[in-house]
Amino acid sequence: MDAAEFRRRGKEMVDFVADYLENIEHRRVYPDVEPGYLRSMIPSEAPLEPESYEDVLKDVDRVIMPGITHWQSPHFHAYFPSASSYPALLADMLCGGLGCIGFTWAASPACTELETVMLDWLGKMLQLPEDFLAGTKGQGGGVIQGTASEATLMALLAARCKAVKCVHESDPQRSEADIISKLIAYTSEEAHSSVERAGLIGGVGIRMVATDEHFSVRAETLEKMVAEDKAAGFIPFFFCATLGTTPSCAFDKITELGPLCNAENIWMHIDAAYAGSSFICPEFRPLLDGVEFADSFNFNPHKWLLVNFDCSAMWVKKRTDLIGAFKLDPVYLKYDNQESGLVTDYRHWGIPLGRRFRSLKLWFVFRMYGQSGLQAYIRKGSDELNEALLKEMTHLGRIHLVPCKLRGRFVLRFAVCGRTTELRHVQEAWTHITELQHAASREFHTMW
Amino acid sequence: MDAAEFRRRGKEMVDFVADYLENIEHRRVYPDVEPGYLRSMIPSEAPLEPESYEDVLKDVDRVIMPGITHWQSPHFHAYFPSASSYPALLADMLCGGLGCIGFTWAASPACTELETVMLDWLGKMLQLPEDFLAGTKGQGGGVIQGTASEATLMALLAARCKAVKCVHESDPQRSEADIISKLIAYTSEEAHSSVERAGLIGGVGIRMVATDEHFSVRAETLEKMVAEDKAAGFIPFFFCATLGTTPSCAFDKITELGPLCNAENIWMHIDAAYAGSSFICPEFRPLLDGVEFADSFNFNPHKWLLVNFDCSAMWVKKRTDLIGAFKLDPVYLKYDNQESGLVTDYRHWGIPLGRRFRSLKLWFVFRMYGQSGLQAYIRKGSDELNEALLKEMTHLGRIHLVPCKLRGRFVLRFAVCGRTTELRHVQEAWTHITELQHAASREFHTMW
Ligand SMILES: Cc1ncc(COP(=O)(O)O)c(C=O)c1O
Ligand SMILES: Cc1ncc(COP(=O)(O)O)c(C=O)c1O
Repeated sequence: MDAAEFRRRGKEMVDFVADYLENIEHRRVYPDVEPGYLRSMIPSEAPLEPESYEDVLKDVDRVIMPGITHWQSPHFHAYFPSASSYPALLADMLCGGLGCIGFTWAASPACTELETVMLDWLGKMLQLPEDFLAGTKGQGGGVIQGTASEATLMALLAARCKAVKCVHESDPQRSEADIISKLIAYTSEEAHSSVERAGLIGGVGIRMVATDEHFSVRAETLEKMVAEDKAAGFIPFFFCATLGTTPSCAFDKITELGPLCNAENIWMHIDAAYAGSSFICPEFRPLLDGVEFADSFNFNPHKWLLVNFDCSAMWVKKRTDLIGAFKLDPVYLKYDNQESGLVTDYRHWGIPLGRRFRSLKLWFVFRMYGQSGLQAYIRKGSDELNEALLKEMTHLGRIHLVPCKLRGRFVLRFAVCGRTTELRHVQEAWTHITELQHAASREFHTMW
Repeated sequence: MDAAEFRRRGKEMVDFVADYLENIEHRRVYPDVEPGYLRSMIPSEAPLEPESYEDVLKDVDRVIMPGITHWQSPHFHAYFPSASSYPALLADMLCGGLGCIGFTWAASPACTELETVMLDWLGKMLQLPEDFLAGTKGQGGGVIQGTASEATLMALLAARCKAVKCVHESDPQRSEADIISKLIAYTSEEAHSSVERAGLIGGVGIRMVATDEHFSVRAETLEKMVAEDKAAGFIPFFFCATLGTTPSCAFDKITELGPLCNAENIWMHIDAAYAGSSFICPEFRPLLDGVEFADSFNFNPHKWLLVNFDCSAMWVKKRTDLIGAFKLDPVYLKYDNQESGLVTDYRHWGIPLGRRFRSLKLWFVFRMYGQSGLQAYIRKGSDELNEALLKEMTHLGRIHLVPCKLRGRFVLRFAVCGRTTELRHVQEAWTHITELQHAASREFHTMW
């Protein structure tokens, strides 16, 4: 395929995508396929000789589309939203075309610098304390991670490294392995599973903190656990607070937890993956009060801020804490200096070495919507049902939701977050649900 | 921006990308900007009201392009190649448009199933042993990771978990933390830094193995280290072999290292990030001999197989080893069963939860090029210079390379891997380099 054919095919693909998104609400949102459906529909080996592009496109319709769960459908109320917008799609096309990799400043200066400045823009929209911004006198800054899971892991690893150093300084005889074996991280029993995974990856103990009647972690509870663990010889070092839990959008009380963590020398990370986008509206900003006590903060513009996956925004108060996470030796100090200047090497800020030019998406979206447009988007737009009802809904495939467990109860989550979801889709869904309630005793067999 | 405007702007963007790629060789490959150049060129806050798309595009030319290191330029011989091709760009547009997230089978059946089958196709192209394929009677399978760094980390974590279980079974009194503190991983002194990082993240000891005169690790050397470590009470559990080291494309002798690792119950992971694409050619396939002893294998189609970043292909011999990496308890068994069936939940195979529909890129590229076309691409296409020469080249910005250290010597790497690089670009570069040698004593000041 040469440039001329790409011009033609690319324009066709733009229309394909526009057609898809314009007509998506008429598609069955949840696919009607059985596990293993695809393998038998295509050859068992790659073709030896090139095929025509027409044949590939035909197979997109024949093989791929029937197996798609349509995340961009206004009938999609499952899991969490996956953001999408036309400006972000255009920015991603540009990112693909440029095809540059930005792991150090020199590997692509524009890629690194736009990321730093966009995270400052976004931080200002959230009214983050200046400490978290790069373009101020502070020592903080932002970075785009692929997912919230990676942000949480990076925060935990940075905290682990800091704790090891700190204990080591006061007790140089103690081995790193011994210190790590005593470290304890904490998070809500309602927290996302990625927090527990971060603990497992980091090889540290992780304790689930019980929540109050609003599913929020309170300082009192954490304080007691910390005291008990310290008395037993453990070293509390990390607390991951959740603002907007996955099951029920509960908020941990960070205004009281923050001072506790600061006093106990516990790194407080805030995971606001899902709800964080709303903090750009002044009326929701109070939900973020207490962030000034945090060491790191993260939310996903790719969930609810019109930026296509993947784009998880993370800020730290002290850059050197994060980039030092992998270095315990003199090399650490080298980066310390390097990062205090203008040159940022983002490869030290995350797990992957290679990085795409993801900040273009933020830039396009911020400029094409403006802060006012983004706030308006957030502003537009609890239920309890039983398992049989969900099964029936899934079977019929007109709307799509997923359940969660809250204190052992089976709760259906209805997420109204699709970019194109309007009031009428929600109303249709509600009519559908109430009608189904009468038939709820029937049994259906589903894959899900 | 509505669908109609997206159709228009999207088509313009296709032309923008095609124009960029058609004319890229006339651009200065390495940008002439100072650190911090971008911040002063754009406002310090996001606009309150929407801006016009024209203004955004104007700023792409004014602000972004001057700061781009042109990875797709035929004059780019730095680092490693970042693959790109028109079919992959089209597939990525489709991926963006669909905007679906594939962390479980149900979250997007097509996304999960195409990935599994594409990794089988690619595995067959590499003549991987059947053990590594999913569509056979074996227990193996493939997955797309974002980067080789993540693949290595996942392999190390899986090996760590397996080792802990194994020691624990024979000595149930021993704590997990104690076992982990005794684990030792090995890799070549020539290995990529991501291997050492994986060890730091996993909290295990990591030892660098000396190489022979060809920069290859030999079994004899590793055997001695393993014996010494065992005698000192450590537990050797992981060896990361490199096929194609970053500095000099050296190959560890896996035909002799594999049997040693198998005998010692050491997980052997193979990192062929850079060179792995060449194994699709029968004449290069012998370089992969010994893979049959490996537990996991990884290379980056996004480096040299015409698939845009990110796409790092990884295979394991035993799926349950990988997905069990985060689970030590009964929950592990649950996944064990689940994964033995047709349903694959890729969220257990990597660090991130969310995942894009990256297998579309493989599918488009495999079909549009065919195996013969990919082999032909691999087939087309040492120097020693001093630091001053590199500085001058960087300063002039006509060609771009990066150096490496080999046994303490400063070596310039000239990577001939750009998709559009032709013989004449290499010839031009050579003329340029020899001319510069005479002026090498001059001093230049560069950022890099
Ligand atoms: C509160 C919370 N944290 C973390 C995650 C994981 O997000 P990611 O896919 O970006 O890792 C989710 C996803 O639903 C979430 O709701
Ligand atoms: C041998 C080797 N391994 C790993 C890597 C890291 O690759 P990635 O950016 O995919 O993490 C590289 C990159 O150059 C490499 O050459």
